[in-house]
Amino acid sequence: MDKVICSLLIRSNRMKWTESIVKNGYKTCVKRFHISSRRDTELTSVRYPKLKRGNYSKVTDADVAMFERILPGAERVITEPSELEGYNTDWIKNCRGASQLLLKPKTTDDMSAILKVCNERNLAVVPQGGNTGLVGGSVPVFDEVIISTQQMNEIISLDTLSGILMCQAGCILGNLDNYVSEHNLTMPIDLGAKGSCHIGGNLATNAGGLRLLRYGSLHGSVLGLEAVLPDGEVLDCMSSLRKDNTGYDVKQLFIGSEGTLGIITKAAILCPQKPQAVNVAFLGVDSFSRVLEVFKETKKNLAEILSAFEFLDAESLRVGTDNLKLTSPISDHPFYVLIETSGSNSAHDEEKLTKFLESMMESGKVLDGTVAAENSKIQHIWNLRERVAEGLMHDGYCYKYDVSLPLENFYGLVSDMRDRLGDKVTRVVGYGHVGDGNLHLNATTPEYNTEVMELIEPFIYDWVAKYRGSISAEHGLGFKKRQFIYHSKSRSAVTVMKNIKGIFDPKGIMNPYKTLPDD
Amino acid sequence: MDKVICSLLIRSNRMKWTESIVKNGYKTCVKRFHISSRRDTELTSVRYPKLKRGNYSKVTDADVAMFERILPGAERVITEPSELEGYNTDWIKNCRGASQLLLKPKTTDDMSAILKVCNERNLAVVPQGGNTGLVGGSVPVFDEVIISTQQMNEIISLDTLSGILMCQAGCILGNLDNYVSEHNLTMPIDLGAKGSCHIGGNLATNAGGLRLLRYGSLHGSVLGLEAVLPDGEVLDCMSSLRKDNTGYDVKQLFIGSEGTLGIITKAAILCPQKPQAVNVAFLGVDSFSRVLEVFKETKKNLAEILSAFEFLDAESLRVGTDNLKLTSPISDHPFYVLIETSGSNSAHDEEKLTKFLESMMESGKVLDGTVAAENSKIQHIWNLRERVAEGLMHDGYCYKYDVSLPLENFYGLVSDMRDRLGDKVTRVVGYGHVGDGNLHLNATTPEYNTEVMELIEPFIYDWVAKYRGSISAEHGLGFKKRQFIYHSKSRSAVTVMKNIKGIFDPKGIMNPYKTLPDD
Repeated sequence: MDKVICSLLIRSNRMKWTESIVKNGYKTCVKRFHISSRRDTELTSVRYPKLKRGNYSKVTDADVAMFERILPGAERVITEPSELEGYNTDWIKNCRGASQLLLKPKTTDDMSAILKVCNERNLAVVPQGGNTGLVGGSVPVFDEVIISTQQMNEIISLDTLSGILMCQAGCILGNLDNYVSEHNLTMPIDLGAKGSCHIGGNLATNAGGLRLLRYGSLHGSVLGLEAVLPDGEVLDCMSSLRKDNTGYDVKQLFIGSEGTLGIITKAAILCPQKPQAVNVAFLGVDSFSRVLEVFKETKKNLAEILSAFEFLDAESLRVGTDNLKLTSPISDHPFYVLIETSGSNSAHDEEKLTKFLESMMESGKVLDGTVAAENSKIQHIWNLRERVAEGLMHDGYCYKYDVSLPLENFYGLVSDMRDRLGDKVTRVVGYGHVGDGNLHLNATTPEYNTEVMELIEPFIYDWVAKYRGSISAEHGLGFKKRQFIYHSKSRSAVTVMKNIKGIFDPKGIMNPYKTLPDD
Repeated sequence: MDKVICSLLIRSNRMKWTESIVKNGYKTCVKRFHISSRRDTELTSVRYPKLKRGNYSKVTDADVAMFERILPGAERVITEPSELEGYNTDWIKNCRGASQLLLKPKTTDDMSAILKVCNERNLAVVPQGGNTGLVGGSVPVFDEVIISTQQMNEIISLDTLSGILMCQAGCILGNLDNYVSEHNLTMPIDLGAKGSCHIGGNLATNAGGLRLLRYGSLHGSVLGLEAVLPDGEVLDCMSSLRKDNTGYDVKQLFIGSEGTLGIITKAAILCPQKPQAVNVAFLGVDSFSRVLEVFKETKKNLAEILSAFEFLDAESLRVGTDNLKLTSPISDHPFYVLIETSGSNSAHDEEKLTKFLESMMESGKVLDGTVAAENSKIQHIWNLRERVAEGLMHDGYCYKYDVSLPLENFYGLVSDMRDRLGDKVTRVVGYGHVGDGNLHLNATTPEYNTEVMELIEPFIYDWVAKYRGSISAEHGLGFKKRQFIYHSKSRSAVTVMKNIKGIFDPKGIMNPYKTLPDD
């Protein structure tokens, strides 16, 4: 969905970047996240003039020759600028580097040999998977060597008994899901970008996605991992066991480290059973506290079959009905809830869901509702939730945030923001994954408005920090948000992170200018 | 269950420790795990004469006076030898230290102040929770200061909406389960020792237990954690969010670090819904490959309601029927499977289970079976599985192992061991958590037999290593198994662990002689 928003955004918004950035300098860069430029994206080094290139070597002809010896064959050592363009720029055209070298290893040994050279030569590198990130983490900032996992796309094994999949890091998530699906299994994560994102990138960014409520985070699903460290050392944590208590669980550090500690080359992932039956309900309720009451009852009554609990406020639904001409299957209410169940027996799940909804209607907690078991109807309901972001673009400019908050404070941010912005904006909407505490807060104006932006930030980050929320629920920090880390993490934790970075990457060649803040 | 075995073992076995150990030296100590002594447990320092005390300071009267100032009030600074005895010795009477000082902080500030002094004074410390471990991790080896979390037993909050519990590290697991149970939730872990183990210790040892198949490991369930580092710094990772991608997930390092990096003081844990209905089936099958076929079908058909899949071989069942006079509810077969379902609707679960079992019987995969929904019958079936370990003690001496193996190699270890030991043993049995790849392999003899022991070890560790299993599925390495870490972890991973230890605990005062091997 983010992909759609951003593409639309790219088409509908333009502004003079250089002016505003040179004036404001590096500190304000993150505020400009949602204003994307055209194909000729400005170089990141120009856009952030206060950011200085690290003291790394520059790639020489001798280096290129060396890499060509390590990676013989066509299309593995790329220096042609036109070919490099797509790898230098992130897909939302927000960050653009000036790398002159792209390497495509196939094996762990390739990766090890490449990194050894880079480390010895003091060449900075940026690992790249599907390049689907939203925070500029997978593209160079200056001239870092790009190491793509594109050719590392082998499925190593699938134990259909235990459900443990082992594969190389460059496998595309969607391909893996198709593959395990043939064996009645499903991947424990699902993302909008699954057609292009790499599993290694999913792990490196600790991707959340749609299935987190049901299957938990990758910290639980990833059983093993292999990574190559900056000095070329292969860190083998490639266990495929559910229980293994022998020493520190080092692999966990790589899940969410955004390629700053080493490059993930292989993974072992526990795949759950593929659900045989899916049902979706769409309900109208009269307040956000009712949404929470329904959530509590849903967890109690649908327990093991619950796979999604999403909400929209009335303004979010209006975006779909007004801007996209979608139709709501129920009458108008202040809040809406989407409940999805996934189980092994369709009749049982429908019975549970129907019985539950009857009790909710009788108690008055739910005012109106509908249930769908057919694919087309399920998709119709999901569209009301999934296409909000797309619909918002029809208003003009969208100020978009993705935060985590404790449930008791969840909607307070939307109300406060609505009060704060008043009639300066077209609308403020709140929707998202209540089940995961993950709120999408969006505001729109006919066109980008600095005054509105300054009313939103840093107010929103301070608000989130006050309630111990997270300023990045699932997108990571990458290049764009790293300076805001202290809004979500303690000084002591960040100090530990920096120390850990130091032991893995003493020369700092691994994905510099990412994740960790400057001192 | 381990508790029962070991208590029985303590009563039924005695041998002259000093002789055998002085002769064999430190390297062989781990082989002697199952031979426990009486109440007057030999000092670990005597039992392992080759192990040298680290270059730490000794506790002085001035230190005690300082700690008394930090922890005013009764029963918080203990120096009385008789009171210290229970804290110096592990409950299986296998390890005994000679600490002369026990401290009982109540708050994180207390913990911080204590550790700061210990670090400045170069006093080694050992953190202790419920002291229920099996590998000597929670008792001093020499004269380390014991820091108990006993008085850190406050439940901080329970968000009944999200199911997130926040508590101090010294809360007893069983108490937490009772507490959340009142709110229709359950703890994501369950252990035999739940009446005395502390949640902080569960996290520090990454306890597995009975619910892992259903709710996954603590790496997924623990959302936040606070720890005090050796220098007194409070590491605040006390988030209570399901999604938070802001930097490295530092807290993961503490899960399974066995108190060697710092002391966990608080935790935030995601509690799942409490099941409303439980059913248990007990089935007979004719081969281990059938066990695996049934497991595959069970996962497919029972999917979201499956909460346990255990197996016993015929020899394991005979232990219960012969030695404990338990009765089997079904006829004799080479292998038995115990399936437990936990769900929100009893009728649905029974219907699923019955239908599934009918198809298994029709296909000939299952030869006989029974299903129980009543508590007493459920317990009767569980006894057949849970009391195997107790029953084995009636044979005399038990050589007991707890390993993880990939399922395709799971039972091969039992067969190979049976061939290897032949008539030198009373029996070799294999049973355990097939669902988690966790095998309990046990052999018995009328009394301890060195020849048998030498046939088992290191053969068993080499066998497990060959198939990339784990030599410690859920007990950790602690003091007893640390030198065997390379059987399950790569050199590169252990090097990283040592580097990590170095940044958290440069002086090495935190739980020395544990988890990591000597250089």
